[in-house]
Amino acid sequence: MVRENEIRAGEAAVEPPPPTDAGLVFIGRIHTPWSSRMMTPRQGRADGPTCRIEIFEPWQAALDGVERFERLEVLYWLHMSRRDLVRQSPANDGTTRGTFALRSPVRPNPIGTLIVTLVGVEGATLLVRGLDCLDGTPLIDIKPDRTLFTPIAPPQPGDFETE
Amino acid sequence: MVRENEIRAGEAAVEPPPPTDAGLVFIGRIHTPWSSRMMTPRQGRADGPTCRIEIFEPWQAALDGVERFERLEVLYWLHMSRRDLVRQSPANDGTTRGTFALRSPVRPNPIGTLIVTLVGVEGATLLVRGLDCLDGTPLIDIKPDRTLFTPIAPPQPGDFETE
Repeated sequence: MVRENEIRAGEAAVEPPPPTDAGLVFIGRIHTPWSSRMMTPRQGRADGPTCRIEIFEPWQAALDGVERFERLEVLYWLHMSRRDLVRQSPANDGTTRGTFALRSPVRPNPIGTLIVTLVGVEGATLLVRGLDCLDGTPLIDIKPDRTLFTPIAPPQPGDFETE
Repeated sequence: MVRENEIRAGEAAVEPPPPTDAGLVFIGRIHTPWSSRMMTPRQGRADGPTCRIEIFEPWQAALDGVERFERLEVLYWLHMSRRDLVRQSPANDGTTRGTFALRSPVRPNPIGTLIVTLVGVEGATLLVRGLDCLDGTPLIDIKPDRTLFTPIAPPQPGDFETE
């Protein structure tokens, strides 16, 4: 059986510096059907179950306008993941690849990013499809999908800069 | 002139909880041509200047395999941004929208996400196009573009779950 936090053949761990360069505040909590990492999808699917993203105070006012966007980008904290592997063997077959060439939850800063479809808004809760994280996962941020968003602020010189 | 950290008409700030729920380690530094927020692009462009992403030790071994991907997702820390606005007025015209309906750098956890084109790898430095952040921005994570990545690990039950 696959265990949850073992180091596998060929994997490489480092001694990481303390994670004290910046601090996060959890702004909400994600509710999904998956309470074990052995059941959770590797990747969300557009026709997956509808899940709930609960926004905590004092951030609820920041939701105004999200209903304009069919898709949202969600950032969440992979709170069960170790952070010290630089090489990983996802198939546990002795072959490895660098962490930055994988979307594994195990990374120096275990932040997941996903595009979800917005199904509805109920007060301070978003109903979305496409998630692939554990029930209870801490929420870090919500943004409009970058492909649907046009900046409202006026352009700046860098916007016109090409090589 | 637009100032950098003012509160504008209609904007709303909150008293945020201390950002102590999780800690980040800066894994590298992003080098761009833009040293002022008044010059920095609002959005990166595919034909923008080639920029450098420097990876610090002990994370350099984690780069192995990134060259397989034409596009990478980059997460970075918007170190100059205030974190307490829940409503913002990007055009400074009195109209406002909630922070989660904007891709503004001002957010409870000021993390930027971008898709960049990988131009080359020189040792522990990635050459990329498409960035829109200040010179010196701290790097948090690099992952393959989700649309180019197929999980290597075997599927789990949740992968087949639909509503």
